[in-house]
Amino acid sequence: MRDIAASHKLAIKRFAAKNPVFVCVISYTATSEIPGLTVAGANPELVKYTSPADAEFLYYGRCRCIDAVPATPDGKPTPALITRAALQAAGIPLLVVDAGAKVKPSIPCVSFGLEPGRNIANENAMDYHMVVQAFGHGELLGKQLAALSDLVVIGESIPGGTTTALAVLGALGIDARFKVSSSMPENPHSLKNSVVASATKRAGSIITRSPFEAVAAFGDPMMPSVAGIASGALAAGGRVMLAGGTQMSAVVAILKRIGRPLSSLCIGTTTYVAKDPSADLAGLVKAASGQVPVLSCDLHLGESSKPGLQAFAKGFVKEGVGAGGSSIAAMLKLRCRITGEKLLKAIEKEYETSIGTARR
Amino acid sequence: MRDIAASHKLAIKRFAAKNPVFVCVISYTATSEIPGLTVAGANPELVKYTSPADAEFLYYGRCRCIDAVPATPDGKPTPALITRAALQAAGIPLLVVDAGAKVKPSIPCVSFGLEPGRNIANENAMDYHMVVQAFGHGELLGKQLAALSDLVVIGESIPGGTTTALAVLGALGIDARFKVSSSMPENPHSLKNSVVASATKRAGSIITRSPFEAVAAFGDPMMPSVAGIASGALAAGGRVMLAGGTQMSAVVAILKRIGRPLSSLCIGTTTYVAKDPSADLAGLVKAASGQVPVLSCDLHLGESSKPGLQAFAKGFVKEGVGAGGSSIAAMLKLRCRITGEKLLKAIEKEYETSIGTARR
Repeated sequence: MRDIAASHKLAIKRFAAKNPVFVCVISYTATSEIPGLTVAGANPELVKYTSPADAEFLYYGRCRCIDAVPATPDGKPTPALITRAALQAAGIPLLVVDAGAKVKPSIPCVSFGLEPGRNIANENAMDYHMVVQAFGHGELLGKQLAALSDLVVIGESIPGGTTTALAVLGALGIDARFKVSSSMPENPHSLKNSVVASATKRAGSIITRSPFEAVAAFGDPMMPSVAGIASGALAAGGRVMLAGGTQMSAVVAILKRIGRPLSSLCIGTTTYVAKDPSADLAGLVKAASGQVPVLSCDLHLGESSKPGLQAFAKGFVKEGVGAGGSSIAAMLKLRCRITGEKLLKAIEKEYETSIGTARR
Repeated sequence: MRDIAASHKLAIKRFAAKNPVFVCVISYTATSEIPGLTVAGANPELVKYTSPADAEFLYYGRCRCIDAVPATPDGKPTPALITRAALQAAGIPLLVVDAGAKVKPSIPCVSFGLEPGRNIANENAMDYHMVVQAFGHGELLGKQLAALSDLVVIGESIPGGTTTALAVLGALGIDARFKVSSSMPENPHSLKNSVVASATKRAGSIITRSPFEAVAAFGDPMMPSVAGIASGALAAGGRVMLAGGTQMSAVVAILKRIGRPLSSLCIGTTTYVAKDPSADLAGLVKAASGQVPVLSCDLHLGESSKPGLQAFAKGFVKEGVGAGGSSIAAMLKLRCRITGEKLLKAIEKEYETSIGTARR
């Protein structure tokens, strides 16, 4: 299929879907408060609003908990623009899961009853029983979704999530240093590595322990929640697309480590992450499980007339809020009736409307 | 179809469904604290646990927030037994909505961000903007569900709900005195009427005002939430079954009053409510909208070997947690492969397991 590439033969055919559902898991980790780690928020005080504002944007095309569309400090807008355009274009239904968001969005939201994640440099990310709860609630939800849909697409919005992914991958024996992606063209690898080094020094190496213990020490509430939803859907015979970048390789590693059969699991992302020269998504996923294909789609954002969207093709933002996966799902659902170029028009329209709305 | 009766010709065919989804809306009204009004809870202190325990029971087959299965003071068990058996038998997926539950269940739960309802005898049930929020969140969710399923079945668990239904129906110009049902064989009509009379004296008659104002003054958070889900699903071209007894006639009245087209809406209940000699479901629904059929199913509980289930056929409990509607949905989905008798076997098995579990 045009504009979609896959790491494994026939993977695009294997994940073709007639009635996909999109689940956006919003969460928080105080690790994101470490200066320089993320630009998911116009300034540090706003970072906690990013995920709920993204979720509100998906439903309303505007945000309620903040006055503007979430953006980087220099004004690159949230990839939720892309996600919303893709879901609307293909009539894909949406559910939002609150997995420890620090600010609650004004939308109907599936709550997993979790606290925000703590700063892994200073203390454990989560209590162990909350990891178990996140995974358990996720499994219950995933089973229901698999009964309703032939492809469960799971995206995330959590600032600072590549650092916790780096830490969890390390704890599971996968060296992800200099391989996780970033929402900035200048990937702050050294800072991420030093945060993880502090966390490891604090908690001790737990390479041989369970994946849930790794998440409790070094992860964030998004990971066990997404892993749980995926696990429940897979166990019920469903197919699952993890819609995101290098963070999702940590989810794959968790699922692999607890022994879930992964033949119906894939990752869906943008080419901006898949081809990110400062990261190695394919290598990380392969290290987690050689079985899981990576699907990536070309959104032609470099050809856009909007500077804010062009920036995505220049290494800013790149992915998030399931933008790549939801675009792939839209293309799969509509078959040849939508291409990257057509989707670009819809994204640009969404951009015009929402930037207009935010300025009002 | 055997064991299902309908008030309107061809209604059973019109609501035949291949992939129904069941939504259980749990809620609370402090009106239930008025002594003698409800037996939905083994004692008055336990009433606030009834809805969340019901929701937990649907997922786990046991409760977490309390040690036992919810029951009346003399041990008649919750109709969630029936709902769970029906959903499991037919593989119908389940979502729970927290619409102002006083105690939060340990399950993944869609939150509408609502407070519990207040005692209508003393004060307004809800702030007006919370009614609007409940309805708005419901509409957003209902739209997504209609895209995933060909029949959205909406049940409820709220103690004291027939009294608030009586009050809202009255405010909307429908005299429901001596017509609402009860979970007791001796329907406390006089007490309900006097509570509503107090509420009307307090708030003044609002017969000419909007349905949302009626809910704010006299209703409970379940009503606008269920009405919103139904409205969203209907607006998206879906079909909706309100799974419950006389409370659902208030929801029909709200939907009619705000001008929603109701040709794809029905009520699904048990024969124990439909034929309740102390109530008049058919009359109330007809007064709310002549267009909405009532489907009712015979669960043959009088033939059960379990005294707790036999009681349902003798005027105790009768309905709740969408027991009747989910049973109808199961029969519709499985066509001739399940009858009332077969379902009874599944319900009895659920009864044995859960009463066993609760005693452990």
